[in-house]
Amino acid sequence: MKSAALGFALNILGISASMLFATILSAHSTKAQTPLPLNLMPQPSSVKTSAGALPIDANFTVSFTGHMEPRLDRAAQRFLTQLRRQTGLLIPASTAGSAKSTLVVHADHVSKDIQELGEDESYTLEVTPAGAKLNAANPLGILRGLQTFLQLVEITPDGFAARAVTIEDQPRFPWRGLMIDVSRHFIPLDVLKRNLDGMEAVKMNVFHWHLSENQGFRVESKKFTKLHELGSDHLYYTQEEVRQFVAYAHDRGIRVVPEFDMPGHSTAWFVGYPELASGSGPYSIERKWGIFDPAMDPTSEKTYKFLDELIAEMVKLFPDNYFHIGGDEVNGKEWDANPKIQEFKKSHNLKTNEDLQAYFSQRVQKIVTKHGKSVVGWDEVFIPGVPKDIVIQSWRGQQSLAAAAQQGYHGILSNGYYLDLGWSAARHYAVDPMSGAAANLTADQKKLILGGESCMWSEYVDAENIDSRIWPRNAAIAERLWSPQTVTDAASMYARLSVVSNRLEWLDLTHRTYYRRMLHRIAGPSTPQEFAALRTLADVVEPVKDYARGQTATVEPTSQQPLNRIVDAVPLESDTGRHFSELADKFLSSGCHDATIANELRMQLSLWSQNDPAFASLAQKSFLAKQAAATSSDLSALGTVGLRALDGVAAGTQLASDQQTQLDSVLTEAAKPKGQLLLIPVSSVKKLVDAASQAGSCTISKP
Amino acid sequence: MKSAALGFALNILGISASMLFATILSAHSTKAQTPLPLNLMPQPSSVKTSAGALPIDANFTVSFTGHMEPRLDRAAQRFLTQLRRQTGLLIPASTAGSAKSTLVVHADHVSKDIQELGEDESYTLEVTPAGAKLNAANPLGILRGLQTFLQLVEITPDGFAARAVTIEDQPRFPWRGLMIDVSRHFIPLDVLKRNLDGMEAVKMNVFHWHLSENQGFRVESKKFTKLHELGSDHLYYTQEEVRQFVAYAHDRGIRVVPEFDMPGHSTAWFVGYPELASGSGPYSIERKWGIFDPAMDPTSEKTYKFLDELIAEMVKLFPDNYFHIGGDEVNGKEWDANPKIQEFKKSHNLKTNEDLQAYFSQRVQKIVTKHGKSVVGWDEVFIPGVPKDIVIQSWRGQQSLAAAAQQGYHGILSNGYYLDLGWSAARHYAVDPMSGAAANLTADQKKLILGGESCMWSEYVDAENIDSRIWPRNAAIAERLWSPQTVTDAASMYARLSVVSNRLEWLDLTHRTYYRRMLHRIAGPSTPQEFAALRTLADVVEPVKDYARGQTATVEPTSQQPLNRIVDAVPLESDTGRHFSELADKFLSSGCHDATIANELRMQLSLWSQNDPAFASLAQKSFLAKQAAATSSDLSALGTVGLRALDGVAAGTQLASDQQTQLDSVLTEAAKPKGQLLLIPVSSVKKLVDAASQAGSCTISKP
Repeated sequence: MKSAALGFALNILGISASMLFATILSAHSTKAQTPLPLNLMPQPSSVKTSAGALPIDANFTVSFTGHMEPRLDRAAQRFLTQLRRQTGLLIPASTAGSAKSTLVVHADHVSKDIQELGEDESYTLEVTPAGAKLNAANPLGILRGLQTFLQLVEITPDGFAARAVTIEDQPRFPWRGLMIDVSRHFIPLDVLKRNLDGMEAVKMNVFHWHLSENQGFRVESKKFTKLHELGSDHLYYTQEEVRQFVAYAHDRGIRVVPEFDMPGHSTAWFVGYPELASGSGPYSIERKWGIFDPAMDPTSEKTYKFLDELIAEMVKLFPDNYFHIGGDEVNGKEWDANPKIQEFKKSHNLKTNEDLQAYFSQRVQKIVTKHGKSVVGWDEVFIPGVPKDIVIQSWRGQQSLAAAAQQGYHGILSNGYYLDLGWSAARHYAVDPMSGAAANLTADQKKLILGGESCMWSEYVDAENIDSRIWPRNAAIAERLWSPQTVTDAASMYARLSVVSNRLEWLDLTHRTYYRRMLHRIAGPSTPQEFAALRTLADVVEPVKDYARGQTATVEPTSQQPLNRIVDAVPLESDTGRHFSELADKFLSSGCHDATIANELRMQLSLWSQNDPAFASLAQKSFLAKQAAATSSDLSALGTVGLRALDGVAAGTQLASDQQTQLDSVLTEAAKPKGQLLLIPVSSVKKLVDAASQAGSCTISKP
Repeated sequence: MKSAALGFALNILGISASMLFATILSAHSTKAQTPLPLNLMPQPSSVKTSAGALPIDANFTVSFTGHMEPRLDRAAQRFLTQLRRQTGLLIPASTAGSAKSTLVVHADHVSKDIQELGEDESYTLEVTPAGAKLNAANPLGILRGLQTFLQLVEITPDGFAARAVTIEDQPRFPWRGLMIDVSRHFIPLDVLKRNLDGMEAVKMNVFHWHLSENQGFRVESKKFTKLHELGSDHLYYTQEEVRQFVAYAHDRGIRVVPEFDMPGHSTAWFVGYPELASGSGPYSIERKWGIFDPAMDPTSEKTYKFLDELIAEMVKLFPDNYFHIGGDEVNGKEWDANPKIQEFKKSHNLKTNEDLQAYFSQRVQKIVTKHGKSVVGWDEVFIPGVPKDIVIQSWRGQQSLAAAAQQGYHGILSNGYYLDLGWSAARHYAVDPMSGAAANLTADQKKLILGGESCMWSEYVDAENIDSRIWPRNAAIAERLWSPQTVTDAASMYARLSVVSNRLEWLDLTHRTYYRRMLHRIAGPSTPQEFAALRTLADVVEPVKDYARGQTATVEPTSQQPLNRIVDAVPLESDTGRHFSELADKFLSSGCHDATIANELRMQLSLWSQNDPAFASLAQKSFLAKQAAATSSDLSALGTVGLRALDGVAAGTQLASDQQTQLDSVLTEAAKPKGQLLLIPVSSVKKLVDAASQAGSCTISKP
């Protein structure tokens, strides 16, 4: 088919390129698999399949034959609710002690009242055509196994069923966390709760609650009421809400670790209590992002008295053994500017600000220890000589963890798991806490590496789009931390991630539904052609990565700017972009001989090449669409370049040097982020141009 | 373009025909309108536009200068929340008394404590580039005007803005209701609440709560606890929930009229209180649908004593002046079979069962009146001589209303507004309470017709799909009941309905989001091609209409069957089907000369013609997909027939008679519902075949 004719038809139709293209490659990559793979995520450590399947119908029952407790009863109800949702079946809400139930659950004994790090989470799940048995040492293992069972239930030609399997499973790491920063943007409790549901579904077991920051102190203190009253814009969790939330997490086998970041990242504290600060104040809630000067006064006994009383109050709210004191990113400017603090440093022989912070950390650690908790802190709190029960959370990387482990300290990895940086699921998935420097540790030292935590920093997320920034990518990190280290195949991960992403919707996570709504806001009452053009563009762009959003902003970003732009609406990983890249690679690895793939590439490129007019029409009506006008123009140019490259390949003649130069200059322009958006297919089109530029024919070898 | 080549490419791509086609026609029907129309629904009675617009940004403020009350303050907060959602702007949550606010609201005086039928709901809304003023006699008018303002806010090249207008508006009818049957399927309170939000958005003002049925008694009675304990499967609203709900409705200017259906439709009452019944019992909750024999004993004084006490209890929960006693569909079989009742009829000179029901109705009406309420009942309660304050709700039609009005009785229309029958929005929209027999009433008699109610009977809806059965079609009925009788243009209605449907999503109604989720359940972990094929098919089918679903069921439907089938998942009105029909009509009215439209039709038909293989592949894996296998085969045949018809038209030669016969036989087969699904485009393809069958060329005149 000629691209001109095709283009004509597509142009008339105003087809959304992405809608079209979403169907292209996956069809290739997933069809004709026999037998169909199980869609389990995280992958269990051992799965043996056998013949047959257990039918799941409205007569489904679950019963408990071993240790029983109210939490298990609630877990069973939640399990039945999920089973009802994912099948639509009217399964009754009854549980019993009968061994004749469809699913018989047996926990040997109770788990700890307060969930402990390293508690047994293993389980075995045996499914036969006649019934299923889930066994575990304690309720934690049961919680994990119930989620695996839900993932086994699939539709079949004869109804719903769970395939016959024997699964033996346990986590690789005992600390598998998600951190959410509720301070830079306040995140309502119901949003956090549905994210706990998502964590349970993928077997994560630590919710790290980043509760205080320059931009907000988010928990009620009855002792120091000005913390939340003056430091939160009235957006905070009451103590009763915190208790409910901790119970909600405990029901799901999730520990809640609170973080109160100090001595930096604490401007919001000083609005009500300027006497804690090293500067002279007055202070107001920070509206910008970044590292700021305000820091607690580490030389004042009043500071420690205050923290002692606050921590005494907070440890009653948070039963977990761990208490996170932050400790990151103190720039020291307030300390340098304060003569009293300078004097203190001299008199205490503290040479540097790092020494001063070490002094502060040790004092706070003692307070935390006094109140019966162990400390977690970011890299900066790791100072040789601190108590051995401390856990280092590394934003710096595996080498920090390894260094700490070599001295006998525990660590968890967050470097490589920052969800806000916009990395692909595959890139997060490739990060292993035991790689790099950690790989060279001794066996005993390796045991000190407890796992990791994904981190959702909230500069650019709010209640509307946060789910989409966490899911589904977080499921890939959850698998990394649960499954054996050998489970690393990204293609398998993506195939299962797609299924898991659909299933997570039954938990009312909004990571898929938010998108069309935000695009409709951007588009307004547009024509279907215009909306399709917006969707086509939005499907192949991603926000700029890492910290570029702040660095490239034309107006300094603040917490008071709305998050209603295209850059806020598009997913952080473009499925369409990924599919196109896979398709282009496949084409090149065929020696450019695969006519079917060539046609598919041509169809996609054609759609892009003609997308701009409808988008430009929308951009004239919507200021939010207008922000992507240049990117839309780039996309159309990109499509045209790609078609020319395919024409060149098809003609079998090498592109003339000036032609190549011309195409490359278009690509160079398209590769520049505009409106803080990256056009994802640029690199794949570049490969096509390179292929067309080689002598005579496509001679690219398999990648 | 040749259909063969196109078909080849589309087949490879596994394009979702519907995704594709959704973009085709609307683009034609809505583009190039200057100036863009206002997307107000219901259409106000008077709108005058002027130059310019009022910018809406984060500095937006609303203030009240007249009568103020807590309800208005809550309305303002709700208004601001909606404004934030639909714009994404961070508008502060403050209201004030300042006349300098962006929107200045002025209510002259208080409205009634308990909202009354016919209270003033008028308002005037003046928007200029400098500010907006909303004036009304009382808070009800303010509530209506605030919704109009929200609908005026749109995206522009420079930000959000409300266009300059002067609107004077009031409802045509004082009774504009939605009835939801929560008895056949229980509908949770949060679902009902978001539907109240939807009603407020389109200015409906009566929520009719169908609370009791053969299948369930859904409200807690403290006096007769066995009503809800034994008659509801433990699915009922507590009295506290009812109070909250009534307050929630009152906040939105919505009256709540409870219905306790009697003497028929009451099996669920008899489970706990068999002594109320005319039969000997015992009774159990009805699981099937239809009209059943059990009926209250109208001859027993115990019945009236029970009802007196129950109504005394219930009127305390429901402050509205109206109390609905049902009264419909008594088949009289239990009465005929009971010698005591036969004896009573003789001794009281009641010749027929209708006479006996009239006796019952009059007794119950007296009880209701004694407790200070006026009666609403279905057609059957209209008996000459009943008190004049009764309101007849007509499921039978305008002639019933007219007959009642001629005798001085009030009425509301529901015939024509049954949402469960699967009619199109346009068909509902065309039904007017004042048409037919009612059109011939005198002016005074016409005043007795108070309005209408849409009815959501719940045989085939549950919490998951009910929103989609109500919205967006209910907005068209809301417009019929609010806007001037002259507002009847269906094309304008559909254009605005599409915008309103998007906006209703900001209220968390799930009428759009449920669809993909239910299709994913049906598809399971399918390939993208298979899912696209399911979507393509689902987009052009509708459930069988009226009462055909029950009549054509292969297994008798019950309340215990899951609602997870394709017939439960597809919207009741196919947008794609409607668009194709419009496109085909346009082609025919062009004398078949419009090549562009011909191409579009060909593209769509081509997609359909090739959809079956991927669907058939899915049907082999999913029992829920399999139910539509025959319909999928019909769709592909339909596509092929349509392409042949277009080929014939293009060739300019009349179809041979045997060819036409062959094509017609395919159409006849495709027109037969299968799996309770109707294939919507059949009639349009039939028009194309007819055109091709005429001598030489397409000679269809404009429709």
